[in-house]
Amino acid sequence: MPFNALRAHLAPVHDLGMAANVLEWDEETYAPENATQARAHQVATLRRLAHEAFVSERTARVIAHAERFAEDFDPDSDDVALVRVARRDFERATRLPSRLVSEMAEAVGLAKHAWRTAREASSFARFAPHLERLVALNVEKAGLLMPDAHPYDALLDLYEPGATTAGVAATFDALRERLVPLVRHVAAAAQPDDAFLHAPYPRDAQWAFGLRVLGDAGFDLSRGRLDASAHPFTTTFSTTDVRLTTRVDERYFPTAFFGTLHEAGHGLYEQNVAPAFERTLLAEGTSLGVHESQSRLWENHVGRSRAFWAHYLPVLREAFPDALGGVTVDAFYAAINRAAPSLIRVEADEVTYNLHIMLRFEIEVELVEGRLAVRDLPERWNAGMHDALGLTPPDDARGVLQDVHWALGTLGYFPTYTLGTLMSAQLFEAAERDLGPLDGAFARGELLPLLGWMRGHVHRFGRTRTADRIVRDATGAPLSAEPWLRYVTAKYGALYPGYEDRGPKSER
Amino acid sequence: MPFNALRAHLAPVHDLGMAANVLEWDEETYAPENATQARAHQVATLRRLAHEAFVSERTARVIAHAERFAEDFDPDSDDVALVRVARRDFERATRLPSRLVSEMAEAVGLAKHAWRTAREASSFARFAPHLERLVALNVEKAGLLMPDAHPYDALLDLYEPGATTAGVAATFDALRERLVPLVRHVAAAAQPDDAFLHAPYPRDAQWAFGLRVLGDAGFDLSRGRLDASAHPFTTTFSTTDVRLTTRVDERYFPTAFFGTLHEAGHGLYEQNVAPAFERTLLAEGTSLGVHESQSRLWENHVGRSRAFWAHYLPVLREAFPDALGGVTVDAFYAAINRAAPSLIRVEADEVTYNLHIMLRFEIEVELVEGRLAVRDLPERWNAGMHDALGLTPPDDARGVLQDVHWALGTLGYFPTYTLGTLMSAQLFEAAERDLGPLDGAFARGELLPLLGWMRGHVHRFGRTRTADRIVRDATGAPLSAEPWLRYVTAKYGALYPGYEDRGPKSER
Repeated sequence: MPFNALRAHLAPVHDLGMAANVLEWDEETYAPENATQARAHQVATLRRLAHEAFVSERTARVIAHAERFAEDFDPDSDDVALVRVARRDFERATRLPSRLVSEMAEAVGLAKHAWRTAREASSFARFAPHLERLVALNVEKAGLLMPDAHPYDALLDLYEPGATTAGVAATFDALRERLVPLVRHVAAAAQPDDAFLHAPYPRDAQWAFGLRVLGDAGFDLSRGRLDASAHPFTTTFSTTDVRLTTRVDERYFPTAFFGTLHEAGHGLYEQNVAPAFERTLLAEGTSLGVHESQSRLWENHVGRSRAFWAHYLPVLREAFPDALGGVTVDAFYAAINRAAPSLIRVEADEVTYNLHIMLRFEIEVELVEGRLAVRDLPERWNAGMHDALGLTPPDDARGVLQDVHWALGTLGYFPTYTLGTLMSAQLFEAAERDLGPLDGAFARGELLPLLGWMRGHVHRFGRTRTADRIVRDATGAPLSAEPWLRYVTAKYGALYPGYEDRGPKSER
Repeated sequence: MPFNALRAHLAPVHDLGMAANVLEWDEETYAPENATQARAHQVATLRRLAHEAFVSERTARVIAHAERFAEDFDPDSDDVALVRVARRDFERATRLPSRLVSEMAEAVGLAKHAWRTAREASSFARFAPHLERLVALNVEKAGLLMPDAHPYDALLDLYEPGATTAGVAATFDALRERLVPLVRHVAAAAQPDDAFLHAPYPRDAQWAFGLRVLGDAGFDLSRGRLDASAHPFTTTFSTTDVRLTTRVDERYFPTAFFGTLHEAGHGLYEQNVAPAFERTLLAEGTSLGVHESQSRLWENHVGRSRAFWAHYLPVLREAFPDALGGVTVDAFYAAINRAAPSLIRVEADEVTYNLHIMLRFEIEVELVEGRLAVRDLPERWNAGMHDALGLTPPDDARGVLQDVHWALGTLGYFPTYTLGTLMSAQLFEAAERDLGPLDGAFARGELLPLLGWMRGHVHRFGRTRTADRIVRDATGAPLSAEPWLRYVTAKYGALYPGYEDRGPKSER
């Protein structure tokens, strides 16, 4: 069977990648401080050997052989999906000459360092030449990956297969139009008290609460772990071993808990990919957008819902009686959903977050199209922040230099955060359409029905289906900003009363 | 430079091995219970790729090229040592046909399982056919590795390069002659009270004490860690990342602490190999015997010395006032050194331990020479135990079936435990010859002078020098049982008074 030959050939390549994940996880969690250099060599060796084995002549042959065989099979079968994904990854991996790959790696190495010092000094000029180089390399890369497409389409496709610049722009335009008035309303409204969130929350009790909710949400701790790291992340070693991390702030409750729930969303996705896909290219989430839809779902639609806290606040109050004695569900719910325009994306709330992303998307497209010069970026950034959020960054460190993504040479990644957010609401609506309203279940601490629905409609498919296909099949419609807008205007309209939603354009 | 070509070629092979170590460490420490199967695939892939890369034509070429170049260099130089070690490992790895390697692997797979059930049922007959097969395969292997040597020499050489059956037998004979009377004396003597060791010792305080002593002993926690695992072990990811594990018994103090010190000995050796050897075949201990010399040194010569506890017992008493209030240094010292003949090797004390090893050595040689049939092994074992320790195992589970080593197909390994024990005493004597008596330093908690000596005379050389060379250069004499016999008779003669040592044969 040529499918078996393909599987057998790619399984050790997959093993190498998973092994590199283990080494990187250890580096972020347990490795002693002076282990870094030797570990970097080891990870580089594993990644290089995986790449070399994947781009080999032998891979070309087994894929081509499997493709001829696949013509007679159901294109919707898992086997044919594997062949399709293998072809896609093979093309992506082989279209870039090694010269470009190493130039990019070298440029990133220099840019990361320059970005750190530029941010410390809040001096964009120090980073600008590096960013110019990285934009040029990305444009070259895009031309090699998809010679006939808009260059930004090729970059988007790396993270969100099948997404297009025009499609994202249309979705974002629809989103912006109705989001900006809501943000203005929230910005002008009276804010709830959240002082009780900034109180002593001892570490061990936070950890125990996080593990309890992980368990209730169906994260299988016999096939995964939660550990501490400086920056929360999720990584996969196999469908039977998915590692989450979070970080604990003993003076602010939301940091660890919502970090844990966010990563749990990623982890549940990876744990529930069909076991039959183990050791194949199919054994992971299908796109960054769909991945983010799951993390946002658990963080926001579950974890920041009133019903969830109707059940869990009494539990939390028992763990932290000093901080939470006398705090009602309504007060807690208002505090954890407090929203206001702010400068820093990673600290932004649910309402304003997407405006941060949309600005980055616009800028990236303009850079790639050559309509914006890197030297004009700070001005463009600050104007964009003023338009979107009514704020002007006092310096570049709190403006255009705040994110590491560009220094890593990644353009086309940011939009997936918002695409995922939109998907989360559309999938949640569809789940409630099928299961009925979930508030009652949440208020009883029952989170498994939602997991079951996501497992069946999203998780189990791994990479066999594209994001577009998953969203259409699960929700009956292509991705749209409307479900999220319905969700966010209803939620924040109630939290910050007096807002009048103008509704979607088509209904006006 | 052909040396650089050799280094560059072997560095990624080394990386693969170290990466496999990381995965195995994680498996024993943090991995969730259901991760086992996928992890086994990953480790197997890494080990297989490392092996394939090492036994390649390219390795043959770079070694041969470096050998021609090495002829003009100082044979004592590190570069030439690297070439020598590479040749040795290459021959070992390529002389065995893959047919034999897989037959051995298959036989071990079956034997491990059979050994477990045989031990549970205490039925040697169930294990016997597997052992017969493994002995035959080992004899075949020995003939391929060293066609002109005694077959047991070839097996010994796998673990203790350069050691010979005749040499080990001569050393062990000298040892046995004077050890047996001491063991008889101890067996007949009154025993010290050790009830206070079997008391509540809370886990966290045990852990903190272990870490404190690790630090005092010079184990660099910025280049290593201590974690918990079911069976204590040490593993190396680089000279900058050495991981120790121990296990804690909250009702018996010695388990975790002496386990930690034993592993610390291994870990200090690995941490102090010259940094220049990083990513080469030289970056590890030179033999199992020398490795064991370091673990025994820290466990016994340091950790079971009276002087050590003169300093640390007050610290320990503060941590465990309930268990140790009123316990004197002499009482504590006597309790942790309590010795008596016993059936199980891994539970044996310092005095009787080597008799367990010597019995296994004799049996292995007899099996390999064909002088002992596997079916006669239980009888041979029980007779040997009676001769050496005056005990007769009540069943095979507590006799011939107790160790896993033979089920793993390893013959020739056991002697390294005793060789290491003998080396530890010879090295410790030499260190005191150079540094003066160390009791005073130990009684002040100063352990670093001993580490410094070991670093300079043993650790830093990595695999550039053989065990024999290290012992001769460091101590001025070849390995001998005399230093250890002096140590053990002086120590146990004092702990169990009334013993009259007859001294070495040559002095009679």
